[in-house]
Amino acid sequence: MKLRDLGEFPFLRRLQQRVPRDAHVQLGIGDDCAALALLGTTLLTTDTLVENVHFRREWTTFTLLGEKAFAVNASDISAMGGEPTFALLGLSVPQDTEVEELDAFFDGFLRAARASHTSLIGGNMSAAPCWMIAVTLLGHAPHGIITRSGAQVGDDVYVTGTLGDAALGLHVLQKGQSDVQAEEAKARFLCPTSRLEISRSLVAQHLATAMIDVSDGLLQDLGHICETSKVGAEIKGEQLPLSPSYRALCGERDWNLALTGGEDYELLFTAPVEQRTAIADIVRTALAPITRIGCITSHAQGICVRAADGSMYTPTQAGYDHFRTE
Amino acid sequence: MKLRDLGEFPFLRRLQQRVPRDAHVQLGIGDDCAALALLGTTLLTTDTLVENVHFRREWTTFTLLGEKAFAVNASDISAMGGEPTFALLGLSVPQDTEVEELDAFFDGFLRAARASHTSLIGGNMSAAPCWMIAVTLLGHAPHGIITRSGAQVGDDVYVTGTLGDAALGLHVLQKGQSDVQAEEAKARFLCPTSRLEISRSLVAQHLATAMIDVSDGLLQDLGHICETSKVGAEIKGEQLPLSPSYRALCGERDWNLALTGGEDYELLFTAPVEQRTAIADIVRTALAPITRIGCITSHAQGICVRAADGSMYTPTQAGYDHFRTE
Repeated sequence: MKLRDLGEFPFLRRLQQRVPRDAHVQLGIGDDCAALALLGTTLLTTDTLVENVHFRREWTTFTLLGEKAFAVNASDISAMGGEPTFALLGLSVPQDTEVEELDAFFDGFLRAARASHTSLIGGNMSAAPCWMIAVTLLGHAPHGIITRSGAQVGDDVYVTGTLGDAALGLHVLQKGQSDVQAEEAKARFLCPTSRLEISRSLVAQHLATAMIDVSDGLLQDLGHICETSKVGAEIKGEQLPLSPSYRALCGERDWNLALTGGEDYELLFTAPVEQRTAIADIVRTALAPITRIGCITSHAQGICVRAADGSMYTPTQAGYDHFRTE
Repeated sequence: MKLRDLGEFPFLRRLQQRVPRDAHVQLGIGDDCAALALLGTTLLTTDTLVENVHFRREWTTFTLLGEKAFAVNASDISAMGGEPTFALLGLSVPQDTEVEELDAFFDGFLRAARASHTSLIGGNMSAAPCWMIAVTLLGHAPHGIITRSGAQVGDDVYVTGTLGDAALGLHVLQKGQSDVQAEEAKARFLCPTSRLEISRSLVAQHLATAMIDVSDGLLQDLGHICETSKVGAEIKGEQLPLSPSYRALCGERDWNLALTGGEDYELLFTAPVEQRTAIADIVRTALAPITRIGCITSHAQGICVRAADGSMYTPTQAGYDHFRTE
């Protein structure tokens, strides 16, 4: 059935019944605003996925798209050391959208939200020439927040997971490649892994001095930390965490995508040298990958990538900018 | 200059410098999230304007568009009896957008925000095939909130301002009409009037039992109050507040647009009969128009519009639904 046959309001009433009630919500979906009583520090972030810019329908499923729309916002909350709590969803879709497509989208979105104990409290629907998904996510920060501005000269630089896989996934989707390695990379592009557990440990133990999520490429996002913290950084090329798919498809020595590929949604953080044991403990207990990839240097030194033989590595492309012409 | 020549991050740095600092914001634009310490009841709403769905570039200016993007969200906060406080802005625009267009948009948005003592605390920018403006607005409600669910049988029904002008404005824009009456109606479509002052008086004196803003047409929005409050309503046709432009272009007796036209962003509320004097006082002191247009009846009676001669009036169209085929 098409949405235009069902109608916006009947669809919203149906949706309202699917959203579990949350005792912390004074007023949820169904009035002009949602109403909440919030305590402590509230985090807020908003991020938009646009069809044919961030995704193509033929590459993904609507359920995965719903999960990703939640995940990219949850990643920003994690990057501050917070926990997601409440979501608003502005969904703009073509008039001939199938209700089944919307249902699948909400399946994914609500599943991802539930897994992070987050309630959908409001939003709006509108017609548009293509799918555009604007999510606003709230979070709380019971242990304080980790900003981009606290990195100190001498700190270690760490990243979770592996780098460059999402950009590689996008590349193989564009090429239509479909071997095993390609499938693994695609999966990383289509739905990022939550790093909430690692973020929670880092903030609870006050281990990280600065943190950001890698959404526009490692060097660009590291650049944001360095600019805000007024420091530089040296990255050791051989220590960049590369997945088996990445090694198979790009080779061990091509670090371009690992340094500049967007949408990995891994956590990039800095921590004092004396926290190495505590961070190794997180890796052991959370069974989550964290790799030390370099150190913070003085602002004057800028950001550089150095190979084990001492040579400097310069990527052939910059990080992602939606508007910059290459 | 095109945005693609300046780049996303340089533009955002420039913008950051334009946004005034607010002592209530722990962390504003420039990190993964904004951070706030919020007390009491927090209101949240999100609304999206999509090019060629909600507006056409050739009809408006980017400054007016920025004002409207703020105003339609502020209207939802007013409709709960709240005051807007903080805004997030998800802005998706074509890659060849001129920086001057964005500057004009932010001129309007930030001016409207400042007039309502609201701080822009974050957002994101993305490429898109057309302009899409997703605003999330927070508000506070120091005197409690007015929901849609409190209307009682016997209550009066009131509306602020005049009805149908925005829909009429859209109509004359589509037709390319440009006499004096047409210009007045266009202005109502291009930038709605804030009703914050009336809302503030209503909630401070606990006068209204239910409230909503008229965004999808009077009958449809009254329908939301009636459905949620489990009541009916009788509207007196001759009491509908019609502007001189409306009377000139539609006539005194054609109530179609007044009953079903969207985007007026006036406040529709119900109040007990004994509050008539207090409400008349608001009209006098705030110099703001409020008109009593009918009364709340039992749920079984549904919603009807009656003319002075006792006859029922049935509009020839329904209220606005983005997806419903007429």
